[in-house]
Amino acid sequence: MTEPNRNTLWARSLVDELAKAGVDAVCITPGSRSTPLTEAFARHDDVHVFSHLDERSAAFFALGRARRTGDVTPLVCTSGTAAANYHPAIVEASQARVPMLVLTADRPPEIRDSGANQTIDQEKLYGDAVRWYRDLAEPEATPRKLRSLRTTAARALTKATGTPAGPVHLNVPFRKPLEPVEVAGDVPDDLPELAAEGREDAFVARTAGVPELDDDALRDLADRLSVPRGLVVAGPADAPGVESEAVAAFAHATGFPILADPLSGARYGGHVRVAPVVGGYDDFLDPAVTASWPDPDVVVRFGASPTSKPLRKYLARVDAAQLVVDPAAGWREAEFTATDLVVAEPSRLMGRLSRLLAGPGDPDWRSRWTDADATHESVLDESDAFCEGRVLADVFELAPDPATVFVSNSMPVRDADRFCPPSTKNLTVLGNRGASGIDGIVSTALGAGSATTDDLTLVTGDLAYYHDMNGLLAVGRSEVDATIVVVNNDGGGIFHMLPIEQFDPPFTSQFKTPHGLDFEPSADLYGLSFARVEGGDRAGFREAYETATRSEGSHVVEVVTDAESSHRARETLHDRVVDELTD
Amino acid sequence: MTEPNRNTLWARSLVDELAKAGVDAVCITPGSRSTPLTEAFARHDDVHVFSHLDERSAAFFALGRARRTGDVTPLVCTSGTAAANYHPAIVEASQARVPMLVLTADRPPEIRDSGANQTIDQEKLYGDAVRWYRDLAEPEATPRKLRSLRTTAARALTKATGTPAGPVHLNVPFRKPLEPVEVAGDVPDDLPELAAEGREDAFVARTAGVPELDDDALRDLADRLSVPRGLVVAGPADAPGVESEAVAAFAHATGFPILADPLSGARYGGHVRVAPVVGGYDDFLDPAVTASWPDPDVVVRFGASPTSKPLRKYLARVDAAQLVVDPAAGWREAEFTATDLVVAEPSRLMGRLSRLLAGPGDPDWRSRWTDADATHESVLDESDAFCEGRVLADVFELAPDPATVFVSNSMPVRDADRFCPPSTKNLTVLGNRGASGIDGIVSTALGAGSATTDDLTLVTGDLAYYHDMNGLLAVGRSEVDATIVVVNNDGGGIFHMLPIEQFDPPFTSQFKTPHGLDFEPSADLYGLSFARVEGGDRAGFREAYETATRSEGSHVVEVVTDAESSHRARETLHDRVVDELTD
Repeated sequence: MTEPNRNTLWARSLVDELAKAGVDAVCITPGSRSTPLTEAFARHDDVHVFSHLDERSAAFFALGRARRTGDVTPLVCTSGTAAANYHPAIVEASQARVPMLVLTADRPPEIRDSGANQTIDQEKLYGDAVRWYRDLAEPEATPRKLRSLRTTAARALTKATGTPAGPVHLNVPFRKPLEPVEVAGDVPDDLPELAAEGREDAFVARTAGVPELDDDALRDLADRLSVPRGLVVAGPADAPGVESEAVAAFAHATGFPILADPLSGARYGGHVRVAPVVGGYDDFLDPAVTASWPDPDVVVRFGASPTSKPLRKYLARVDAAQLVVDPAAGWREAEFTATDLVVAEPSRLMGRLSRLLAGPGDPDWRSRWTDADATHESVLDESDAFCEGRVLADVFELAPDPATVFVSNSMPVRDADRFCPPSTKNLTVLGNRGASGIDGIVSTALGAGSATTDDLTLVTGDLAYYHDMNGLLAVGRSEVDATIVVVNNDGGGIFHMLPIEQFDPPFTSQFKTPHGLDFEPSADLYGLSFARVEGGDRAGFREAYETATRSEGSHVVEVVTDAESSHRARETLHDRVVDELTD
Repeated sequence: MTEPNRNTLWARSLVDELAKAGVDAVCITPGSRSTPLTEAFARHDDVHVFSHLDERSAAFFALGRARRTGDVTPLVCTSGTAAANYHPAIVEASQARVPMLVLTADRPPEIRDSGANQTIDQEKLYGDAVRWYRDLAEPEATPRKLRSLRTTAARALTKATGTPAGPVHLNVPFRKPLEPVEVAGDVPDDLPELAAEGREDAFVARTAGVPELDDDALRDLADRLSVPRGLVVAGPADAPGVESEAVAAFAHATGFPILADPLSGARYGGHVRVAPVVGGYDDFLDPAVTASWPDPDVVVRFGASPTSKPLRKYLARVDAAQLVVDPAAGWREAEFTATDLVVAEPSRLMGRLSRLLAGPGDPDWRSRWTDADATHESVLDESDAFCEGRVLADVFELAPDPATVFVSNSMPVRDADRFCPPSTKNLTVLGNRGASGIDGIVSTALGAGSATTDDLTLVTGDLAYYHDMNGLLAVGRSEVDATIVVVNNDGGGIFHMLPIEQFDPPFTSQFKTPHGLDFEPSADLYGLSFARVEGGDRAGFREAYETATRSEGSHVVEVVTDAESSHRARETLHDRVVDELTD
């Protein structure tokens, strides 16, 4: 295949190399400078193009796909502020260790900083948030440049999916013509086939290991874990998640209970039948409860910092050896309670350890945790007071099996943590806990949904829903169906949990910030069905949610709640759990 | 006044200093870490708080205010990706030289990169896009730190409004408590009054000069300008704009025609009665027309690179001395045709020069330009073919006097350039031509509107309207009334002007990208009235637009157009102008 000019050859070579390495989709926003890349992706048979109009949403959509698959979905945008709109999602990808490949088209070097239109300084635009940055050479049909380009594609993917995974930024300058028009002499007839076409498979095959302890270190670790009282703390997982079987095997071998964050990949699934998975810690780990408990001997932590503040505070006050297992030698533990940093891939480590260990641990210790969890669950079951957490509980109970459930930041992820007990359902629960922003939530969820045949539910607050309403365009445009549950408490309900609540003004005007939006037109705008129920009408919500998940198309189910009374109900439930456990 | 803790003292000192320096408004998005700043701004009597929910829109709103006023409207956000959402507007402010002050709250140093929640790397987050960056010291009630803080406020404003104006980023770490709760011993009773309260006026008074030539250099320049054929090219103005009287005086003294970009501040206003302001160059500067024209002897350019590509191409092909006047010694001229860089403030320079010059120039030269302009205008007047440019022409004709008219990037600003002739109306025409993005347009316009009692009209395409629909929240929330004209050609009409139009696929799916959105619900969502007219129905549009501008509240007037036929109509009109001028 001969390309009409150097730009088309250049873009086709890059796309060809990415596709040979397994890239099967791309998120593109329209623009002129990126024409060669867009054209090359669009005509590649093995790459599906997701076309977006808002770069911020596009980037979160790509993030969501990678969250669900563990693989890269590249992003393509034109030069200028388009690229700056990627920044929020890039920061999230960096902190949450999600693979991402950003391809920003750029003007050629000589017109940068010259006043040329749509020409900004894109060099190292995302600073230290990317794992790797390259300003590509100017396109030219020479063997060395083309080999460099194909090698760069392999390096970029290796970095993006490495340890830790994260975003990679390639800045790609082009000069006109940008379209596939014939330019005589631009692509020599005698270009060697290897340069023009690459290899039949990837130009550079990639094989990547993960950090693993040697046998001596493993045995030492096993010795340290042969203690009566241990805990496994599974924080939010790096994409594509932890192997729940390995966690269960480890818990079985040690007898340690697993405190599983809803985003850990360890709270839901078949392994819950056999493993002591605990989900109510956010409720019952009150200092009044744990005052009479013995401290654990050892805590094994992996994943990111747990969502639960009571859990983090508990870990900060116990006197225990705390082993932070992190393949990337990161430090995701802001109470600084770690006594050991173990640089190893956690699933593999737990699998290997579980074959060395045979300590069932202290059964009283284990049942202390499972009993507390049971008390927490029974208090919730027996109460009929409404709080927003009920919405999460209902969704997790009623969601189809399997389902992918995306929970927004602010209250939904916290309510999932407290109100959604471990279950054997095959739920993939995802969130953006890298930077825990309320931006890009709709798009991240739809991106995750685009990568699976699972039913998709998003549970979001009203502010996060508003923030990325533009992301709803993907419902029709990218043909992703979703049920979107909007817990609408008209503003920042989470601020009721903070001391600023006592200072009004400025509490209502600057923190709670009620907006009074009626979201029904937003569903009309993007062709979603719309239903509204009052939070107190639990049966009504359950029916509306089930109707939505059983119907074709996409749906918004708005639950109108009162943040303050929800917060008080959470507190009341918590007090009851503490009472039961301290009687 | 004694503050209850170090954070409230710190934030109050910073806000106090900004207010004493003239800051009278702030754009705040809700968040926890920024509580001390939010609280301090909210209780300051002389500062109006604009409360936003989407940081991207908030930053463009602040940009729009500064575009209109020339002064800073600070931005306040919490830690995390909130700050990354400012990036697009910061890039625009940097390139368009608009003053901006970004205050990002941050976690204290010891928990950065520790896995703590909503803690990202905010150090130098915006790279080289800001004029100045400081990571502030940790708040503490010591005289030296407080003096440093007040001095920093003065430095930040000086940099933001300097030459060139632009964004400044202060990263402001706080540790708990964030609320105004009493912390014993946090603020010593014996803190000197100067540290606690600052001075009665600004802690550091600021007096800033601008680059000005000495008398010898000025006379040399005047000699070079004493030639028969000269041109003044007024590109998009730096905020707050050029003094049109100075431009008119210069044109009068030299006899040079003024080619005034619609965003130059020199195309509309009373001076048009007396100065040879030319607006139709985008249409008539065809090589076929100018082939028979003599070249200018000298071209005096100021402002940013002109919107008009025909004008830029003309300037690139003539053999003339080209003087780029730029107070910031910048280089905004990507054809590299400049022969002289004159570092001086243009209004002042032209005012001084006009007192030295007495060359009326070549009257044939001047009338060549004014005649061509008249021909262009008469061809437009005589044609009744619809094209999107008619919408702009009608808006500029019918807008109240005075009015602020914001034109979006992509086609509206180009159509304003070609179809909206100079007039004596008091129109302040604004756009975002720093990076020429289609992001943040709604918010920038509303921000500009918030700073003036003028009637506000925004003319935008459908993609830019969609991109920043979130910005419409400011209509109700910030009480800014606007008439928003959406020229809806269902996608990227501008791509019809590019060669990629000939390649379909991918033209329609990846460039034109029709979305099929019905925008009426977007008006419902934010409480705007909505009217839709067909582009061909010119009388209908004129009536709908006038009805909107005469009614209370805010309005969306959608004009449904066909991008391709509009583009063909533009070409036909252009051909007719060229025919007339080459006959």
